Amino acid sequence: MSYFDAASAAPLHPVARQALVAALDEGWADPARLYREGRRARLLLDASREAAAEAVGCRPDELVFTPSGTRAVHTGVSGAMAGRRRTGRHLVVSAVEHSSVLHAAETYEATEVGVDRTGRVDAAAFAAALRPDTALACLQSANHEVGTVQPVAEAAELCRAAGVPLLVDAAQSLAWGPVEGGWSLLTASAHKWGGPPGVGLLAVRKGVRFAAQGPTDERESGRSPGFENLPAIVAAAASLRAVREEAAAEGARLSELVDRIRSRVPVLVPDVEVVGHPTLRLPHLVTFSCLYVDGEALLGGLDRAGFSVSSGSSCTSSTLTPSHVLRAMGVLSEGNVRVSLPPGTPAEDVERFLGVLPEVVRSVRDQLDAPASPAAVSAAAPGGVSGASDEPALTVDSLGKRCPIPVIELAKVIGDVPVGAVISVLSDDEAARLDIPAWCQMRDQEYVGERAAERGTAYLVRRRT
Amino acid sequence: MSYFDAASAAPLHPVARQALVAALDEGWADPARLYREGRRARLLLDASREAAAEAVGCRPDELVFTPSGTRAVHTGVSGAMAGRRRTGRHLVVSAVEHSSVLHAAETYEATEVGVDRTGRVDAAAFAAALRPDTALACLQSANHEVGTVQPVAEAAELCRAAGVPLLVDAAQSLAWGPVEGGWSLLTASAHKWGGPPGVGLLAVRKGVRFAAQGPTDERESGRSPGFENLPAIVAAAASLRAVREEAAAEGARLSELVDRIRSRVPVLVPDVEVVGHPTLRLPHLVTFSCLYVDGEALLGGLDRAGFSVSSGSSCTSSTLTPSHVLRAMGVLSEGNVRVSLPPGTPAEDVERFLGVLPEVVRSVRDQLDAPASPAAVSAAAPGGVSGASDEPALTVDSLGKRCPIPVIELAKVIGDVPVGAVISVLSDDEAARLDIPAWCQMRDQEYVGERAAERGTAYLVRRRT
Repeated sequence: MSYFDAASAAPLHPVARQALVAALDEGWADPARLYREGRRARLLLDASREAAAEAVGCRPDELVFTPSGTRAVHTGVSGAMAGRRRTGRHLVVSAVEHSSVLHAAETYEATEVGVDRTGRVDAAAFAAALRPDTALACLQSANHEVGTVQPVAEAAELCRAAGVPLLVDAAQSLAWGPVEGGWSLLTASAHKWGGPPGVGLLAVRKGVRFAAQGPTDERESGRSPGFENLPAIVAAAASLRAVREEAAAEGARLSELVDRIRSRVPVLVPDVEVVGHPTLRLPHLVTFSCLYVDGEALLGGLDRAGFSVSSGSSCTSSTLTPSHVLRAMGVLSEGNVRVSLPPGTPAEDVERFLGVLPEVVRSVRDQLDAPASPAAVSAAAPGGVSGASDEPALTVDSLGKRCPIPVIELAKVIGDVPVGAVISVLSDDEAARLDIPAWCQMRDQEYVGERAAERGTAYLVRRRT
Repeated sequence: MSYFDAASAAPLHPVARQALVAALDEGWADPARLYREGRRARLLLDASREAAAEAVGCRPDELVFTPSGTRAVHTGVSGAMAGRRRTGRHLVVSAVEHSSVLHAAETYEATEVGVDRTGRVDAAAFAAALRPDTALACLQSANHEVGTVQPVAEAAELCRAAGVPLLVDAAQSLAWGPVEGGWSLLTASAHKWGGPPGVGLLAVRKGVRFAAQGPTDERESGRSPGFENLPAIVAAAASLRAVREEAAAEGARLSELVDRIRSRVPVLVPDVEVVGHPTLRLPHLVTFSCLYVDGEALLGGLDRAGFSVSSGSSCTSSTLTPSHVLRAMGVLSEGNVRVSLPPGTPAEDVERFLGVLPEVVRSVRDQLDAPASPAAVSAAAPGGVSGASDEPALTVDSLGKRCPIPVIELAKVIGDVPVGAVISVLSDDEAARLDIPAWCQMRDQEYVGERAAERGTAYLVRRRT
């Protein structure tokens, strides 16, 4: 098995394992107690805080440990908003933040700042969303689904000029280096860098107004209640230091492997869109989408072929909507595959992946009776131009059919209408809203727009070629 | 070293250690993912939930894992209060609940129900505090500082009759057996039973109205956000099952050791009050207080003698007030020692403890120049009765002096006034409010009451013997 989903959870780093097992013996007691076992636990906690703070680039007394990255985000957002409640209840976030940030933002009045097709925020546009009543802004250091790195230092400078603190969710990037720039709050998650689950980091710079919400206690400066998960904290700090020592060399090596995937997948597999920024990106992560492919079937096929990857397609978990990140980018969501390589991934595993991928995609497409090749679409082009009318010459009823069927049915009939004519695709699948325009862009057809229909939505496409 | 503070954190059970280390290899992946590693993690999570639910005595779908017992309590209280917000914002708690319950209750209108001198709640009095706008009642299964077992089943029945859900904090008792009776919500903490830190339990019975507060996600039925701490969860469930198998035999053995401490400490050490219920108690926990002793010095002396215990005295941690539990019981707080024996504690360790304790106490008393013996107080009794006046014949100025100095100074002069005369002790130490009346009760002197003074408070004591 090759596990290519480090962005969900990295396998435990050997240093983390070693530190965790050692701390089970040395660090189980209550660090608040004054007896020997308690003092020993306190020493371990203090040392872990110093090591983690050094890796984050903050003072130890600015850093607390939380039970997870998600809890760090929830605590960070609610504490920062409460600390500036006199300023207002407005919050600025990017549209591609992790769901923990978006969930935390739901309590307030949030403005989501959009991204370009690579998933990148424009710092000036981000700053333009700040208002006099903005209490907090949130921008990830790098995106968890497509790997695009955000202009955090630039955004932090603009936020500082506007007097608004910036919270940076650094969950995906902290393994590779500290977050540069004048951020005010920072969050991270140990199991993303090869540390154990059960540990998040929340850094709040001195001078940032912060009022922890909900019941608190004397633990972690009153910012994270409950008995400290000390063995895991020790392992988290030790492994962060260890991955940092390897970060430059391993990052360069994995980045080269990712470049192989980025350049060769579109050659090996027809009708593929590689998404995310080609250079301003995490070293170990690449995402692509395959036309006419059902994400769940694709993941199942890759799993059987020995590869564990994740997907932002709809229908791949309990949700029926495609990933909010792909939606914000306006890119194809069907047949979406995210590959995130854990440190140490052998080059041969990536080659093996590139070897099996074409056949797995072909097999899923065959099962779905997908159009064989792009040529099939543009080849048949009888008849003349039917004028500029948006009245559909043909209606495809895809009601009740899930992604990628509506797109497949559209692709099959586009050759049946004259160039200039409009096809209406009726669909009640949320993914169609994203994938039909994306298909038009990939196929050089014109996406006219959508209209409410008696059932579902009518997506209008004009044949251009 | 003998570690006698299991009620703070029990050393890791061998089964917990074994399960944790195994789960580091098998259970690091995201249980929400559909690939092999994710499915394996999901199986471990499901099996752990089933095992823990069986030990709790609930259905697996009624139980979620939280990052700590404290977080379980916070989530349980806020979710239950929100689920019944139409009923009201009133909450009934016992005065001796764990601080996590009392902190959670601070957000609402809370009624604290008092306890008797053994720390036990009267179920009828508890039920009498229920009002038409009471949304929730909270009663611990057993007290964490003095070991007294609460009448939970009886309280649950009365709550049920009143239509109010009862939340039981079972942190201290779950190792010893399930909580009997018709509770509605239950919380617990793995590191109290020998599981790892980082895992709490929250059970919410079907039919109990519950609305999780704060941002949530798809984890743990939407009741505990953030990536599951799976290796620790696996270890928690496995160790709970293991300690339960040993509970009957080990409980009986430790209970006998506790009885030795309960009966012999007052014989070995003069001026000691053993607190907590003598029979309705946890098997492994006993607490006593020593007159004329500074809690921190006592803990330090015991630590140097090789024993790790905790204390509810003031001045033993960052707080200057005695434990709210001892205060609610109205018992002596100075020189307080809680002994809680971990499973497997050898009888010889308890004997060794009983061997060193008298000398450690004597040494602390000597340093404080404490009254040598009770006889010294009642021996000198010159003069006659000074009438029934509350006007002090003598004023002891203990302003600026911390526990146990005010009580020591009182004890030194009680023999200097005639029987029937009143001594006024001026003190600004919070512990005096508890310890001067407790001293009177132990010494058979009359506690007249307190009066506000220009500085601090005047505590009035009439010499009776």
